[in-house]
Amino acid sequence: MTQRPFNFSAGPAALPEEVLSQVAAEMLDWHGSGMSVMEMSHRGPEFTAICATAERDLRELLQVPSNFHILFMQGGGLAENAIVPLNLSRGGEVDVVVTGSWSKKSAEEARRYADVGIAADGAPAKYSAIPSPASWQLRKNAAYVHICSNETIDGVEFHQLPDLKALGSDAPLVIDCSSHQLSRSIDWSKVGLAFGGAQKNIGPAGLTLVFVREDLLDRALAICPSAFEFKTVAAAQSMYNTPPTFSIYVAGLVFQWLKRFSYAGKTGVAAIEQRNIDKAALLYGALDASNLFENRVAADCRSRMNIPFYLRGEYNTPALNAAFLDGAKARQLLQLKGHKSVGGMRASIYNAMPLEGVQALVAYLKDFEAQHG
Amino acid sequence: MTQRPFNFSAGPAALPEEVLSQVAAEMLDWHGSGMSVMEMSHRGPEFTAICATAERDLRELLQVPSNFHILFMQGGGLAENAIVPLNLSRGGEVDVVVTGSWSKKSAEEARRYADVGIAADGAPAKYSAIPSPASWQLRKNAAYVHICSNETIDGVEFHQLPDLKALGSDAPLVIDCSSHQLSRSIDWSKVGLAFGGAQKNIGPAGLTLVFVREDLLDRALAICPSAFEFKTVAAAQSMYNTPPTFSIYVAGLVFQWLKRFSYAGKTGVAAIEQRNIDKAALLYGALDASNLFENRVAADCRSRMNIPFYLRGEYNTPALNAAFLDGAKARQLLQLKGHKSVGGMRASIYNAMPLEGVQALVAYLKDFEAQHG
Repeated sequence: MTQRPFNFSAGPAALPEEVLSQVAAEMLDWHGSGMSVMEMSHRGPEFTAICATAERDLRELLQVPSNFHILFMQGGGLAENAIVPLNLSRGGEVDVVVTGSWSKKSAEEARRYADVGIAADGAPAKYSAIPSPASWQLRKNAAYVHICSNETIDGVEFHQLPDLKALGSDAPLVIDCSSHQLSRSIDWSKVGLAFGGAQKNIGPAGLTLVFVREDLLDRALAICPSAFEFKTVAAAQSMYNTPPTFSIYVAGLVFQWLKRFSYAGKTGVAAIEQRNIDKAALLYGALDASNLFENRVAADCRSRMNIPFYLRGEYNTPALNAAFLDGAKARQLLQLKGHKSVGGMRASIYNAMPLEGVQALVAYLKDFEAQHG
Repeated sequence: MTQRPFNFSAGPAALPEEVLSQVAAEMLDWHGSGMSVMEMSHRGPEFTAICATAERDLRELLQVPSNFHILFMQGGGLAENAIVPLNLSRGGEVDVVVTGSWSKKSAEEARRYADVGIAADGAPAKYSAIPSPASWQLRKNAAYVHICSNETIDGVEFHQLPDLKALGSDAPLVIDCSSHQLSRSIDWSKVGLAFGGAQKNIGPAGLTLVFVREDLLDRALAICPSAFEFKTVAAAQSMYNTPPTFSIYVAGLVFQWLKRFSYAGKTGVAAIEQRNIDKAALLYGALDASNLFENRVAADCRSRMNIPFYLRGEYNTPALNAAFLDGAKARQLLQLKGHKSVGGMRASIYNAMPLEGVQALVAYLKDFEAQHG
């Protein structure tokens, strides 16, 4: 088949073509079972094996320590904004570092269950930089500290997780890593809990991954719905309620794809991280060299995954934005429109985006500038 | 392709073959968009159209009145057991009619948020019959009355919804219709809210349908997570958080299949209901005529969807149960094992099960009886 278009959607987002092909091929009969994965009891031997393999592969890929549970849940990041404080806050103090739209939402939702303190707020700099951890106002009794380790809309990313201990805090760190999970390795020694919706680097929307340290399992408020209690879900190995079985299956195929993936002499997550570094460098380099386009994020916290960009100054007109997006679509460069809250353009270049996709976008940026700049 | 095996799973359950074939065919490129449905922004024009069509078709199929919102949510029936009281109980009284495992779970979960009264309990009769509505102890101030209109494990079904007004109650009726929704028409005049996981008659696990009457939208407790607040979800037309997009797409194809479906001179839900009546009559008839097998549910509340059956008396040995299930699998009759809590066998014969599947099961019952009876 011919080259598929390059899809820059922020999520639900592009998946590896070979995964989609395998899903299609197995749709009516998974491995001679006579069933689609959609049609299998979640408690039967076929799906139990699919789920266990997915978890094992994910654990291996991200080197998740044995004292962390991996939970397959539902509801996405917005639901976790409530589920996390329901499970961890004990109704006490929660500190949130606001670095963009997502962490701001997390802080708002947590107020339903806890005394929320804003440890730092990037709003004055329009979320173009991450406030230095040394400046964070961390409270002694906080039940946890929440950060969004990659802001999908604002395009800022923590390239190093904060070391709360070194900052004088004993609180566990919670990271919302929805939009960059599996794009890089994670330093689990700094993390208490990590969560993320699957629909960026993992699989279909409707699946949420939660990595929770064993000692944080047993703190849920009595008002926490049992289907969302980490302890209950962990004890049932994500089968307390019927999990999103088909999404777990697709995620499992993505994990297998990533295990096979090689690049620049590396394999697995190290390989995809290197390719993500190279893709991001290529695109930021082109934007920085341009007189027509700009990215506004500080160099040290630019996201490798979500790259918002804008027409500069007088060029930033509705007509020229529309012309850019129309021209992109004509070149098979899809879903480049920026988030409605900030406008402009955004290129989400998740794991499934090949280097060739970024090269094609960069070529288009140059051609568009030559024509309109 | 050859005949697929007949799949009697209680859920996730069999889907129509032509739906699965279409899903496979469109996997890499939906309608020339260059994207899989899994890869589309939920806010883009393609998915917005898919979702709107699915909702419109469902509304048409079930003749849902305009004062009901249809919500596409996540978490399944177990999550709804918390989400419903979080939205409707106002922290006051809730009456639950316990007719089996599912309504029992609903009552237990609701106790986290409300003063739960058991209006009636089928436990003394081992859930083989539905307590007569005239005997229900309904409280004057109940915020709502909850029933499970089809008990998946116990195999009892309400063939007529209770008329709470006629019973002297002004409370809205909440029905958990997970395992028979879309298998029959619904008398909406008796219903305040209906909910159900998709993984029986609708589509992949991970999608939950909620039908909520307009006047019940604005009662949520402050502790209700915003992603599960009916009012919030309704106002955003199920796009407050990223919905399970691919599952909604598959559900939409099932709705289109059902609109095309014809049987016994009828079409749509009327046709599938007639076929479900005929399938159930065939299987219950065979069980009642058997000296080896039995169904233990009272004739007036036998489920058309989930038919548990057991080897009679001395025949009910682990060895003979295992022999039955092995023989079934050899005949391509899959997933007939009963729920672990009750043992025995269970045939779930949802919408996607053709008459031929039930005929094949009945033939096997007779052959097995001739050999072992």
